[in-house]
Amino acid sequence: MTSKNTAEFNWDEQRLERTGIQEAVYCLHKSAGQIADILAYHQQQQSSTLLTRLSAAKVEQLPNHLSAALDFNSSGQIAIFNAEFNQYPQQQSDKDICIVTAGTSDMSLAYEAQVTLAFHGYKAQIISDVGVAGLHRLLNRIDDIRQYKLVIGIAGMEGALFSVLAGLIKSPLIAVPSSVGYGVSAGGDSALSSALASCSPGIVTVNIDNAFGAAVAAIKMISAFTHSAQNS
Amino acid sequence: MTSKNTAEFNWDEQRLERTGIQEAVYCLHKSAGQIADILAYHQQQQSSTLLTRLSAAKVEQLPNHLSAALDFNSSGQIAIFNAEFNQYPQQQSDKDICIVTAGTSDMSLAYEAQVTLAFHGYKAQIISDVGVAGLHRLLNRIDDIRQYKLVIGIAGMEGALFSVLAGLIKSPLIAVPSSVGYGVSAGGDSALSSALASCSPGIVTVNIDNAFGAAVAAIKMISAFTHSAQNS
Amino acid sequence: MTSKNTAEFNWDEQRLERTGIQEAVYCLHKSAGQIADILAYHQQQQSSTLLTRLSAAKVEQLPNHLSAALDFNSSGQIAIFNAEFNQYPQQQSDKDICIVTAGTSDMSLAYEAQVTLAFHGYKAQIISDVGVAGLHRLLNRIDDIRQYKLVIGIAGMEGALFSVLAGLIKSPLIAVPSSVGYGVSAGGDSALSSALASCSPGIVTVNIDNAFGAAVAAIKMISAFTHSAQNS
Amino acid sequence: MTSKNTAEFNWDEQRLERTGIQEAVYCLHKSAGQIADILAYHQQQQSSTLLTRLSAAKVEQLPNHLSAALDFNSSGQIAIFNAEFNQYPQQQSDKDICIVTAGTSDMSLAYEAQVTLAFHGYKAQIISDVGVAGLHRLLNRIDDIRQYKLVIGIAGMEGALFSVLAGLIKSPLIAVPSSVGYGVSAGGDSALSSALASCSPGIVTVNIDNAFGAAVAAIKMISAFTHSAQNS
Amino acid sequence: MTSKNTAEFNWDEQRLERTGIQEAVYCLHKSAGQIADILAYHQQQQSSTLLTRLSAAKVEQLPNHLSAALDFNSSGQIAIFNAEFNQYPQQQSDKDICIVTAGTSDMSLAYEAQVTLAFHGYKAQIISDVGVAGLHRLLNRIDDIRQYKLVIGIAGMEGALFSVLAGLIKSPLIAVPSSVGYGVSAGGDSALSSALASCSPGIVTVNIDNAFGAAVAAIKMISAFTHSAQNS
Amino acid sequence: MTSKNTAEFNWDEQRLERTGIQEAVYCLHKSAGQIADILAYHQQQQSSTLLTRLSAAKVEQLPNHLSAALDFNSSGQIAIFNAEFNQYPQQQSDKDICIVTAGTSDMSLAYEAQVTLAFHGYKAQIISDVGVAGLHRLLNRIDDIRQYKLVIGIAGMEGALFSVLAGLIKSPLIAVPSSVGYGVSAGGDSALSSALASCSPGIVTVNIDNAFGAAVAAIKMISAFTHSAQNS
Amino acid sequence: MTSKNTAEFNWDEQRLERTGIQEAVYCLHKSAGQIADILAYHQQQQSSTLLTRLSAAKVEQLPNHLSAALDFNSSGQIAIFNAEFNQYPQQQSDKDICIVTAGTSDMSLAYEAQVTLAFHGYKAQIISDVGVAGLHRLLNRIDDIRQYKLVIGIAGMEGALFSVLAGLIKSPLIAVPSSVGYGVSAGGDSALSSALASCSPGIVTVNIDNAFGAAVAAIKMISAFTHSAQNS
Amino acid sequence: MTSKNTAEFNWDEQRLERTGIQEAVYCLHKSAGQIADILAYHQQQQSSTLLTRLSAAKVEQLPNHLSAALDFNSSGQIAIFNAEFNQYPQQQSDKDICIVTAGTSDMSLAYEAQVTLAFHGYKAQIISDVGVAGLHRLLNRIDDIRQYKLVIGIAGMEGALFSVLAGLIKSPLIAVPSSVGYGVSAGGDSALSSALASCSPGIVTVNIDNAFGAAVAAIKMISAFTHSAQNS
Repeated sequence: MTSKNTAEFNWDEQRLERTGIQEAVYCLHKSAGQIADILAYHQQQQSSTLLTRLSAAKVEQLPNHLSAALDFNSSGQIAIFNAEFNQYPQQQSDKDICIVTAGTSDMSLAYEAQVTLAFHGYKAQIISDVGVAGLHRLLNRIDDIRQYKLVIGIAGMEGALFSVLAGLIKSPLIAVPSSVGYGVSAGGDSALSSALASCSPGIVTVNIDNAFGAAVAAIKMISAFTHSAQNS
Repeated sequence: MTSKNTAEFNWDEQRLERTGIQEAVYCLHKSAGQIADILAYHQQQQSSTLLTRLSAAKVEQLPNHLSAALDFNSSGQIAIFNAEFNQYPQQQSDKDICIVTAGTSDMSLAYEAQVTLAFHGYKAQIISDVGVAGLHRLLNRIDDIRQYKLVIGIAGMEGALFSVLAGLIKSPLIAVPSSVGYGVSAGGDSALSSALASCSPGIVTVNIDNAFGAAVAAIKMISAFTHSAQNS
Repeated sequence: MTSKNTAEFNWDEQRLERTGIQEAVYCLHKSAGQIADILAYHQQQQSSTLLTRLSAAKVEQLPNHLSAALDFNSSGQIAIFNAEFNQYPQQQSDKDICIVTAGTSDMSLAYEAQVTLAFHGYKAQIISDVGVAGLHRLLNRIDDIRQYKLVIGIAGMEGALFSVLAGLIKSPLIAVPSSVGYGVSAGGDSALSSALASCSPGIVTVNIDNAFGAAVAAIKMISAFTHSAQNS
Repeated sequence: MTSKNTAEFNWDEQRLERTGIQEAVYCLHKSAGQIADILAYHQQQQSSTLLTRLSAAKVEQLPNHLSAALDFNSSGQIAIFNAEFNQYPQQQSDKDICIVTAGTSDMSLAYEAQVTLAFHGYKAQIISDVGVAGLHRLLNRIDDIRQYKLVIGIAGMEGALFSVLAGLIKSPLIAVPSSVGYGVSAGGDSALSSALASCSPGIVTVNIDNAFGAAVAAIKMISAFTHSAQNS
Repeated sequence: MTSKNTAEFNWDEQRLERTGIQEAVYCLHKSAGQIADILAYHQQQQSSTLLTRLSAAKVEQLPNHLSAALDFNSSGQIAIFNAEFNQYPQQQSDKDICIVTAGTSDMSLAYEAQVTLAFHGYKAQIISDVGVAGLHRLLNRIDDIRQYKLVIGIAGMEGALFSVLAGLIKSPLIAVPSSVGYGVSAGGDSALSSALASCSPGIVTVNIDNAFGAAVAAIKMISAFTHSAQNS
Repeated sequence: MTSKNTAEFNWDEQRLERTGIQEAVYCLHKSAGQIADILAYHQQQQSSTLLTRLSAAKVEQLPNHLSAALDFNSSGQIAIFNAEFNQYPQQQSDKDICIVTAGTSDMSLAYEAQVTLAFHGYKAQIISDVGVAGLHRLLNRIDDIRQYKLVIGIAGMEGALFSVLAGLIKSPLIAVPSSVGYGVSAGGDSALSSALASCSPGIVTVNIDNAFGAAVAAIKMISAFTHSAQNS
Repeated sequence: MTSKNTAEFNWDEQRLERTGIQEAVYCLHKSAGQIADILAYHQQQQSSTLLTRLSAAKVEQLPNHLSAALDFNSSGQIAIFNAEFNQYPQQQSDKDICIVTAGTSDMSLAYEAQVTLAFHGYKAQIISDVGVAGLHRLLNRIDDIRQYKLVIGIAGMEGALFSVLAGLIKSPLIAVPSSVGYGVSAGGDSALSSALASCSPGIVTVNIDNAFGAAVAAIKMISAFTHSAQNS
Repeated sequence: MTSKNTAEFNWDEQRLERTGIQEAVYCLHKSAGQIADILAYHQQQQSSTLLTRLSAAKVEQLPNHLSAALDFNSSGQIAIFNAEFNQYPQQQSDKDICIVTAGTSDMSLAYEAQVTLAFHGYKAQIISDVGVAGLHRLLNRIDDIRQYKLVIGIAGMEGALFSVLAGLIKSPLIAVPSSVGYGVSAGGDSALSSALASCSPGIVTVNIDNAFGAAVAAIKMISAFTHSAQNS
């Protein structure tokens, strides 16, 4: 009655040219079959692509000839397909971006950001478990963090790290509220509202658990100010 | 058809004996007429009482012979009636309780707590405007704060002060989330959830803007451990 | 592409000295691997540590040489690792802290509090299933409860126990709203708001299901008033 | 362009016959002009009607010949128009319905319920300010309350009164959550969820501040079981 | 470290005498072990008890000698233990209570109410699937429904049944919002707010999915008006 | 420092051609000055325009030469400017659109819809106060309503009208939830969720109080099917 | 004790005649047993019916003689039973309805709409993956979309597609917010509020994930304006 | 009893050095008296300061010698005090920052951002009223917008502008959700969630109505990448 004659996806070929960032495959609500269709397209195009929110269970359901070309970070639920065809130039600086996490439970998001940056040619340092319950842990590392032009902060629960960190550095801070918590902080709402309502001006925020988005924003910021051919 | 033959209030005479704290008059949803009835009762009983959430507008509507006996703190919207009859003993220690505020906008709550404590015989020091956006302001005062056995913290917006402060002191911290904020922090929900979800264990919380409740809890804590005749 | 060269955790060695309470391992959002890394660190340090929100499933995934050193309370989802190295002194008093629960369903939180207190050297009595639907159950035990300097109350559903209990005792009451309920009380929001909005002044609250936090707050209160060397 | 040729109201003449209760005029969102139109209709019909949520400001805007026929309770914001034409029989029993309030601030709702009942021929006793913060106030009156076949309970803030009261009486309890409160209980949500989530089975609830609805439900309950000609 | 020396439950023996309804066992948040302890107590007491929110999975985990004495309705997730010892008198009337459901998906709640009523000696008729999308289904049955003194209405989704039904009958209507729905009505909030906000006065409500509570309220209403020895 | 050199508005000249509906002036968040600037533009263009959410207070603040050209419906808070230049053809049919309201309080939205339709050349009949609490009022008018090709339903509180009405007619129903209500229905959320969650399939909804949007949608529906030159 | 003597469903035979759309079977909250009972009824009646929200797991639990007559679309979780008895006439036009999706993840809802339309005799074209992140994808197809009299738009996450699309076409747009998203857009609330709050007037909305409802509304719109015998 | 011996504010002198941005005075919850105290301090220090959320009413309450030194933008509710002492260097580039608004109602936030930038030495262009309901308005200006290194987007209601704009430019986009809207978009929640949940990666967000914060973040971004002496 309803034949599947419709192509279910419609790859945004010009996104790289238009926005500086190529389309990634957001896997959370896609079936393994839909993901496979998209990877087959990239196989054919001999292009590399990034896959986010990819569960190990779905990786196992992919055909072998596709999963073999995946470089999969299971903690970060992120993968690079056809890395060999990746055409982004490797950036030389290793002092552009620093990723700071409040707790061990935030590491999966740190990896999501780090892999996203790596795919686009950027190195990033992770400084982990410096939540403000033990303030000295952050203060011990603050001079390191100050070396970087841009900081991605990741915190769940009450998200107090964002305000303290932003008050101590000149660099812009991109907050990634994480869904780590329970009770009133279940799902990440407390951390998100802390990032938005911070008494430290100049924090910008992305959606809960959206480390990918924070990495993309970081790349757009760096590109905007360091490349001459802006938006043209 | 419905004659006002009902006495509208029913004073809890034994509350002091039962809980260590006598009943106070919460004025927010009471009419000036209802407040006047209660004050007249205390006038007749020659007893002193505390009034919270009392607006200047309602004070003006009270009969002169009642308002004359009011010691009113307009910023804290709190008053003491018949102070001369107050029978609480003055505590000697001035290192029991410290009130710490994140910003200038939280001062009205600091006064509400301070007057409540004073009514019950306790002195309290206010250390104000030490929010974490400028962390050194807090660090500069932390040794002072550490002198106190108990800390009442007041903060609105994202409430990051609670976590940082609790991580730096041994004393218990009673958090008072304030309704200072806008957007996602309007009404105080962000500060409340930060207090509840804090990564620093050992914070306890009261309702948004309930500085009176924090002061009462502080008194109950001090009494529990310093008086011999506990609960009897 | 992203080698796991980052140490994922950063133990807060000075927390005991700074706040009187050593860091505990919150397991809810940590993988079994991350937990094992932390336990191995304590194995090597010959130190004892407390683990909260630890599921039986994760215990089973731990290496045998680590799980063998765990004293696990499955109902309370809480464990003590390397109890033999625990250096907290045993407190003598058994009338400091009482844990009161509204219903049988709240027992797991009662155990979480009790084990946390035991780890820090405090005995605590549990008085269970005295919810206000059958008020005499509470009234029958109220004289017992009044013997204690501090009360931890645990209740889900509508949390009416908090107000009634606080109105009957001089001791401070730390409320632990539990996530027991369904419909409007699913997740514990009703019990939490009852604790916060109580008509009985002097209740302080922790996050939903945070019995660990209530126990830590109780310890900080007792320490503040019974040890001479406060905060120094 | 749009002539006001539409009659804006459409009186439900048969509601009394169909449901046992005649239509009342809910004034909160009606303009004084719309209210006047409805009263003029009743003036012409020589019928009596009940008006709820009627502000003093709107009463003043009504034409004199209409407001003269109003019996207005300003605290309860409720009025009876054309009382002389009221045809409900006066019930003899004065032990049918008791109205119990937690605090003085709930009296306006108590009057709303009492006037509604009076309009329909029922007497009701108000027992006020027996909130559970001072439990003895309730226990002192509980034998009185037990004399009534049906109880309407009114409470704001955390609404703990509902659970305690329902656990002490055999009569059905209709809970009226009031919008008395601030912070998390602002607007009455805490009291409403306490009524719904109560651990005492058998409580039924109406909307926040809907004392009128509680009174109507009480009348339907009494009628259902005491009149022979049920629903026919 | 923490021996299980605490009796975890505390049966409310006098609830029947005090409120007219004996305590039931709410199983949702209890473990099979806790339920078994309670049933063993009733086994020993030779008393009958009602169990609500009991899953088939937990029934299977009970010891055989206990489960053998269970009369389990799996759709309604409700059971009667030791029915032979039930001492409630069988009521003669079969026109007291009618249970009306909006859709087939609401039948499990209808059974929960029906079994609860049966345990207490009341027969109840179920009239099912008369939601207002096909209004004639309700109108066809309305004369039947009008025969009953009290109606329990069960509806999910938008809960429009409550308003329509209450506008057509003289009997009181107890609304049970069900958690049937998705999107904005997931969890039952839409149906609950429809019951509370109804334009038809006189509806009373219980918590989402609380058919047990509706049945208990119904019994209390009938008892209040039909038994002479009220509350004594 | 910041001269007001920026033109603050940017009239969408092609909206009529592109969507069939010309831009209207939404006044709720605009200052009287901003509205005056826009009207001056239309004065100059000799074009007619519709203004929605326009308060009487702002009308009074407009310059006389502009307010003189306003045809203002104060109940509906809607106005037509320069009606003489209106170029929409008058539709002949008076059986296209019917506006049905649940209560008198919904009339202001009915006028907002009716004036919007009139501005675009459509007549609409208002059938008011037929809420389902008195079902016969709706059933008495249902044959009239069935004469219309499209129905706009307006209801606040619990919004049960939408489901009942949609179940009785073949025409599409556009629901306008109104913000009439209090407690859980304050602001219109209950009515909105009833429209969305209805058990009667085929209802479509607009935002709370958006009678203008409902009217525009109605016009687009009629145009789509009755004009030959669709979208071209 | 409670024999299952109640017929659990009550088929709305006249719904087709009354509303133009026959009743469908909403399976989400029905057990496989309840679904089988309904299909057996249609088997006996030799009638065709539509089943929505039908999981593959429930299909497998149906008796073979019933499942054999199901035409099941697993992606759309929708099925047609007894297609051979379907009596809806096939509509000739293939330019009536277009279904537009923002992303690949929205395809299951597109199939739900398409099958619903097919059951009622309408063909619909799906134009997929034209979300506004790559605006040219939508602009490339906009002339195609403009050929259709009515557009069903499906989008999750922030739902920006609805506003952009409505601003570019004359046809009415029925928005179906999908539950595709995470963090603040988990469950579809963001997309729903975007549809409701759109700055493009004339969008109408259905519940989150209610593609069935959108299809039914579309059919009612087409029928209203293209059939002569409206509502009679 | 409580003398006002406490200095209520505690100016963060080192914030400029530490974060690159000096402290501003957030006036929303401060009294005119508190603001005057702070201005007097700056008067004395001969320093310039920025004041946000400053109402005209409070300006009028300030002493003349202070208000005379205010440069007040009433639409943006923002002021510069002692502009003559401002020591920020004027930036030469006028292609750094572009402010884009969806509607006329968003202009007050545009001014708040523009004045904040001006205070810090940055020029910014406002491109207003280019909301996506009339997409061509945005497309007509997109080449202009592409000239800027960084874009601040301001939109209320459903906030669709953010996604469309981010998909068309390489520059980073800072979203400012505005509280323009009603019904589900009242208060700005819809626009905020659209910014957070956008399908266009790389958008970063600030709190509702926080144009000041967006401007500060923009300055930190530009500074991070264009000044050599980063964070030192």
